[in-house]
Parts: sequence; C-alpha cells; structure tokens
Amino acid sequence: MEIERKFLVERLPENLVHYSHIEIEQGYLCTSPTVRIRKAGDVFWLTVKERTLSTSTAIHNREEEFRLDEEAYNRLKSKCDGRMVLKTRYKIPVGDLTAELDIFHGHHEGLRIVEVEFPSTEAADAFDAPQWFGADVSTDRRYTNSFLAFN
Amino acid sequence: MEIERKFLVERLPENLVHYSHIEIEQGYLCTSPTVRIRKAGDVFWLTVKERTLSTSTAIHNREEEFRLDEEAYNRLKSKCDGRMVLKTRYKIPVGDLTAELDIFHGHHEGLRIVEVEFPSTEAADAFDAPQWFGADVSTDRRYTNSFLAFN
Repeated sequence: MEIERKFLVERLPENLVHYSHIEIEQGYLCTSPTVRIRKAGDVFWLTVKERTLSTSTAIHNREEEFRLDEEAYNRLKSKCDGRMVLKTRYKIPVGDLTAELDIFHGHHEGLRIVEVEFPSTEAADAFDAPQWFGADVSTDRRYTNSFLAFN
Repeated sequence: MEIERKFLVERLPENLVHYSHIEIEQGYLCTSPTVRIRKAGDVFWLTVKERTLSTSTAIHNREEEFRLDEEAYNRLKSKCDGRMVLKTRYKIPVGDLTAELDIFHGHHEGLRIVEVEFPSTEAADAFDAPQWFGADVSTDRRYTNSFLAFN
C-alpha cells in the first residue's frame, strides 16, 4: 500500500545538483488499472497500481512492481498508448522523509511536481510542507503522470 | 507465492458435468515476466507472474492479480502477442486439494492438462497423483499456456 501526497513546486531548492537524481522514461499500457512501464537509469520496471478508497487527503494505491529486462521493456513500450513521459527525478530529504522532485522534459518541458510518500495516513495528514512546495494537487488528476502521457 | 504441479491427463474423470466449470479466454502481452489477461466467465483479470528459483519438483511463482473492467480487458487484448488461449476449466476435488482440469478449445482443441496448487513445497513433493493423472509435465515449457499461445 502506497500513501502519498503531491504538490506543485513554488521554487526549486538551491544546489539541486548535490541531490541524487535519475533519468526516467515511462509509458502506459492501460490507465485503469494503471499498467506502467518505466526505465529508471539502466533498470526497467513494470508497475501495476490499483486506486483504492481513501478517507484522508492522501492517495492510497496498491502498487506491485516487477523487474523487466530491456527486451521485455521494448516489447511493452511498443504497445503503450499516448506519449512516453520523460523526467529527471531528484531525491531530497525533508525531515525524516524523502521528497521526490520530478522535472519534466519533452512535451511537458519545465513542469515540476514533488511527491512525498508516508508511512501512515496520519503522517500524510499531519505533513507540514516546506516553503519551496506549492499547491497540494494530490487529488487533481491533471497532474497524474498517466494524464500527462495523453495531454 | 504459488506452488503447483502440472500433469497430462490419462483419462477424464467420469461425470465431468457434475463438477463446477468455467469458460476461460486468455492472452499474453509479455512472457518474461508473464503479463497475462484472462476472461473467466464474466470476470476480467490482469495477472503478472515472476518465475522464481526452485529446488523441488514444483513450480514457484510470484503471482499478482488485478481486476479489470471489460473496456480495459479489450484494450489490453488488442495488444496481445500470439493467439488467445481458449479452455474450459473444471475444479475437481483430490483429497484435501483441488485439481484444475483444463480442456482446451480452438487451436489446441482436445489438449487436456491438470494442475494442482499446494500449500508448501513439501506437500508438492509428497503428492500422490490419482490414477486418472498422466505424466508430470511441471517443468516442460511446451505445456505452459504462454507457449501454447505461440505454437
């Protein structure tokens, strides 16, 4: 079970280059449930996500990940609908948690979204966002990666 | 984790019509890992299976299942490689366990395979197959459904 919140970015943290980052390419075979392939650096993944009910401000998903080899990735890539989503993901510490800052490339060049994953619904509800975070878009489907692949 | 053994069928059990059965259609988006869609009766599934190492006679898989609606099923069906596999599956009690007897239709009309799932590797190794079971083909890839979809 994945519990996360998603925000726009008011301003980028300084010295981004000092944080670990990875190049991501991903695409979708299906969006309900989400059937996603992702290349992160040199590692290939298939992820299936089921949206489950939520009573808090956070997103709750069942998420299952499977490793792919490059051949399987390319086979599934050829079956994707919409465009491939391209972004650089930075991992930035926020207290005891880690923010994942995505800076998009290609069709959505310049778009910036930051996500935080929480150990519990209570932690998600209690999260005090840093100054550099912008509006909470956890429930705004226009900022889902699957929406971005088609729009 | 799924632990199962697979056999050919020496002769069909009598009065098959008395056992519960369901019509299955399935196909493959990828075979390594296995990314399978299945229609069983009126219910649609996406299943991803990772083959894991085994030291016994049984097959060990990590298997994750997700419900699909008919629209998602048809979308993914259009992306399948090979042929759709068609079969009638009968559930037949064998002691405390349940045998799943598949009688194939279409391209493999008449092929019969029976599978038993076990609670442990020990139970799989100790299984005393009924008289109506034929050769153990647990490790023979020609009898995997994904092989049958392409051959």
